[in-house]
Amino acid sequence: MHAYRSHTCAELNTSHVGQEVRLSGWVHRVRDHGGVLFIDLRDHYGITQVLADSDSPAFAEIDKVRAEWVVRIDGRVKARDAALVNPKIPTGEVEVYATGLTVLGASEELPMPVFGEVDYPEETRLTYRFLDLRREKLHRNMMLRSNVVRSLRNRMWDQGFTEFQTPIITASSPEGARDFLVPSRLHPGKFYALPQAPQQFKQLIMVAGFDRYFQIAPCFRDEDPRADRSPTDFYQLDVEMSFVEQEDVFAAVQPVIQGVFEEFGAGRKVDAVWPRIAYRDSLLWYGSDKPDLRNPLKMQIVSEHFRGSGFAVFAKLLENEGTEVRAIPAPTGGSRKFCDRMNAFAQKEGLPGMGYIFWREAEDGSGMEAAGPLAKNIGPERTEAIRAQLGLGLGDAAFFLGGKPEQFESVAGRARNEIGRELGLCETDTFRFAWIVDFPMFEKTDEGKIDFSHNPFSMPQGGMEALMGDPLAVYAYQYDLACNGYELISGGIRNHKPEIMYRAFELAGYPNSEVDKRFGGMVKAFKYGAPPHGGCAMGIDRAVMLLADEQNIREVIMFPMNQRAEDLLMGAPSEPLNEQLRELRLRVVPKDQ
Amino acid sequence: MHAYRSHTCAELNTSHVGQEVRLSGWVHRVRDHGGVLFIDLRDHYGITQVLADSDSPAFAEIDKVRAEWVVRIDGRVKARDAALVNPKIPTGEVEVYATGLTVLGASEELPMPVFGEVDYPEETRLTYRFLDLRREKLHRNMMLRSNVVRSLRNRMWDQGFTEFQTPIITASSPEGARDFLVPSRLHPGKFYALPQAPQQFKQLIMVAGFDRYFQIAPCFRDEDPRADRSPTDFYQLDVEMSFVEQEDVFAAVQPVIQGVFEEFGAGRKVDAVWPRIAYRDSLLWYGSDKPDLRNPLKMQIVSEHFRGSGFAVFAKLLENEGTEVRAIPAPTGGSRKFCDRMNAFAQKEGLPGMGYIFWREAEDGSGMEAAGPLAKNIGPERTEAIRAQLGLGLGDAAFFLGGKPEQFESVAGRARNEIGRELGLCETDTFRFAWIVDFPMFEKTDEGKIDFSHNPFSMPQGGMEALMGDPLAVYAYQYDLACNGYELISGGIRNHKPEIMYRAFELAGYPNSEVDKRFGGMVKAFKYGAPPHGGCAMGIDRAVMLLADEQNIREVIMFPMNQRAEDLLMGAPSEPLNEQLRELRLRVVPKDQ
Repeated sequence: MHAYRSHTCAELNTSHVGQEVRLSGWVHRVRDHGGVLFIDLRDHYGITQVLADSDSPAFAEIDKVRAEWVVRIDGRVKARDAALVNPKIPTGEVEVYATGLTVLGASEELPMPVFGEVDYPEETRLTYRFLDLRREKLHRNMMLRSNVVRSLRNRMWDQGFTEFQTPIITASSPEGARDFLVPSRLHPGKFYALPQAPQQFKQLIMVAGFDRYFQIAPCFRDEDPRADRSPTDFYQLDVEMSFVEQEDVFAAVQPVIQGVFEEFGAGRKVDAVWPRIAYRDSLLWYGSDKPDLRNPLKMQIVSEHFRGSGFAVFAKLLENEGTEVRAIPAPTGGSRKFCDRMNAFAQKEGLPGMGYIFWREAEDGSGMEAAGPLAKNIGPERTEAIRAQLGLGLGDAAFFLGGKPEQFESVAGRARNEIGRELGLCETDTFRFAWIVDFPMFEKTDEGKIDFSHNPFSMPQGGMEALMGDPLAVYAYQYDLACNGYELISGGIRNHKPEIMYRAFELAGYPNSEVDKRFGGMVKAFKYGAPPHGGCAMGIDRAVMLLADEQNIREVIMFPMNQRAEDLLMGAPSEPLNEQLRELRLRVVPKDQ
Repeated sequence: MHAYRSHTCAELNTSHVGQEVRLSGWVHRVRDHGGVLFIDLRDHYGITQVLADSDSPAFAEIDKVRAEWVVRIDGRVKARDAALVNPKIPTGEVEVYATGLTVLGASEELPMPVFGEVDYPEETRLTYRFLDLRREKLHRNMMLRSNVVRSLRNRMWDQGFTEFQTPIITASSPEGARDFLVPSRLHPGKFYALPQAPQQFKQLIMVAGFDRYFQIAPCFRDEDPRADRSPTDFYQLDVEMSFVEQEDVFAAVQPVIQGVFEEFGAGRKVDAVWPRIAYRDSLLWYGSDKPDLRNPLKMQIVSEHFRGSGFAVFAKLLENEGTEVRAIPAPTGGSRKFCDRMNAFAQKEGLPGMGYIFWREAEDGSGMEAAGPLAKNIGPERTEAIRAQLGLGLGDAAFFLGGKPEQFESVAGRARNEIGRELGLCETDTFRFAWIVDFPMFEKTDEGKIDFSHNPFSMPQGGMEALMGDPLAVYAYQYDLACNGYELISGGIRNHKPEIMYRAFELAGYPNSEVDKRFGGMVKAFKYGAPPHGGCAMGIDRAVMLLADEQNIREVIMFPMNQRAEDLLMGAPSEPLNEQLRELRLRVVPKDQ
């Protein structure tokens, strides 16, 4: 017989009754039922019930074991009494009568239990991650993650993509975040950087003549921690294709993502129609460039109804250039109580308040009437026009926000979320996707400077010609995939023409020399026969969070850092040895200097 | 029609004749055949011949393009004249008559050609890696590597393994090489390290209750460069299993490796019988712990024949303790010329020479005689006993080396290689594997100290009891897989018992406190219910080198560093910005301090 097991803890059933078997695993739970000892023996695959009475030669040994000891059990498979069958586990019809027990790995007193899934402080969970991971939920999350990555890979191969590994110890790749640096011992005083993304490498792979690249790629950003972000490294599904336009990328990626969400969505519906929404429309309609389309509410511009109206706040505001009034429709929200609650929400968000109108049955029985101070101020005709535009009716409400869109758009988006949630309008158990397209290439900074608004490597729509006009009017071939309020994918068709790239950077205030210095490898490559190409990247951790229905990224990472970017289990970061610093010719500067 | 192509450059055949098509790719070659212009148009998939005569509206444009420009061709598929069919390529029966050409990406004068596979200095190749990679051989190597990794993954999944990703920014993991350090910005003065291997993490994954782990894992070692080693990072197939003994690991891994070598060996034979060879036997028989078993030569101890013999050098030497004389048999090597050449080889290797005997036809017709000075010195009886022991005969030779084995073993191994090669005794076109087992746990250092001879985390054979006796007599459950003279895999059954681990380190001179400090995370985990476990790791780069039949690791890595650990394309390492150093609270120490 094998030294440790003849079967796993998920394998035995009534067909094995009478057999001598050997199992190994963790003691999930020990119970003493009046002189009969029960062990739930757990391994990676499942749980098997083991028992011994005082006739068993293993009785005394079993009496000594405690939770989470690793033991080997020799015994005989028995059918359970019908009344004791546990239909929830595959081994629930049998149990193993133990005739021998060997301790393979004892355990000290546990700092946190595995059985019972009790909540424990994150500090403890991360310090004893090896115990935390034994818990059913985390074990399941890790298996989910692994299976998702496997499925992504297979689906990418099936779409004709090839996986290549790109360097991890490399040059700085400015992507907007901070680089992690790695001091060079062979070249003291010089540093490598860990890649924020394989952006330049994947573009070089296209220039090198490979056609469809992907990689499950580790990315490194020295960022200040956040709940939905790892403070050090994360993984992305990185994709690049040659000889493609935007729609080709969408067509290649949708079946992969949709397929994975269908496979691992645990029955949640996966929308097969992925609308294209222009960036500006997304901000207008949903107050976000990553809209949650499970929420059916769509905002509209209603400025005309307020221009010159009796509602002085909006009428006056609209006299300033660049201002607008927008409405959030709220079907079924037509009560003063609800409207006041939303108004309070807006105040909590830092706004003076949120005007509203709601439509109710008139007390005099004359039919529907519009209520709320706003309705009175602008009068029945304008109120009715608004109602008609928004398609609302009896029992509904509408909320209004005004000003420069960029100043209230995100609050409007949050109010839309809140209204949808409060009124129960949102779908649950659905994944809704949308491609957000036509991102502006440039934006004006607070100092009035022109800068890239997103990715500087994207091709401007209209090419060189467009860059000769108003930069703020130029859109980029750049896109995001939004899913349930998260940005799941970001990508673009790349600017593969050196002259257009130099011009784009010139508009953003960077001379050619700066472009050569910062992106030299890639720009040089574009001068020796570069194909049109584009691609995208999907955050793996985020996709798994969505599928596992977790709010915290640390629930889907095997060994995560804490929020202070510390590894509590391994003790990182730590003080280096003097010898290490000497080899690197580095000195740590004391705090007060 | 698609903006860039209706077909790839490997797709067209006689079934497309007459169709209007669109192709995009690189101009592999342009030729002018008396007023008819030919372009070999190349993409990732293949090559298609394009032509235009002066009647074509594209003629003038085609006349302008140069090698490695990226162009789009519109044209009509034609069958080639029978005499001009090229059976070597899938598109060889057709050509495309161009009616339009659009330049998608022009190229400056090339620093190195793509067509023709001319040898170029590595400096140029790495600086223009994106051109180098367009060459057929490198393109093929990269595809091979990618397919090998894919196949490894699928085969591991098929064996019931699950892939998990382990941290890259983490704590120091002493594996015998130098760590790359990463300074922490949030904790100035403290450093992370990049993992030399996921050794501790994979063991923690076992302690966390997962059963069969694997990972295509990036590993980082700050080592001085060598031809068959990347100076920064490399990939390994990392494997770990719970509740296993050594033979279980072998049984899980062999089908994976054998399968991959059969799949990608390009017809080379793959040995299905993988012998187990004890470490000491491997050194004795082959002079190496990574023997090349394509070479049939097996050394033997022949000390007894020289003890007290007339060959004073060996007779005297054998009076010292720990000395031996070993013979390398050399079938068909029986000529003075060959023997002298091997003797010269030994002298080049720094030995005084290599004694030999060879057996030839006696000039007087009396049959076989033993020749060479050694034979004369020890006399016919001893000579005959040696011949009989080695199983040699007429036309064969034997070479002799003596001393303390550790002082001549590796030269003996190289001589064995040389003899096998020179005499044409080695198999070609075969992959021969062997598990090298029973590595000694400890060794005596030059200073007479006891130290770990290989991996300190392996379980000593005999457990705690063995550690109470002579440390130098203890073997470890540790193993390598040798393939054609390379170490392809290294692994072991781990020491999962804290008390045995403390004792092993104590023997090597490390107090418990030092063990806790250096391997704290893992040792702590072993105190809370650790399963017996073991595994191994295979160098991916090395496996691909073997399959691609390359001698230099840079031929199987997409973007390799040069031998000075510099990335010539991206310009790494480089000087950091002052601001970066300030954020990290680091100062570079000038050279003269």
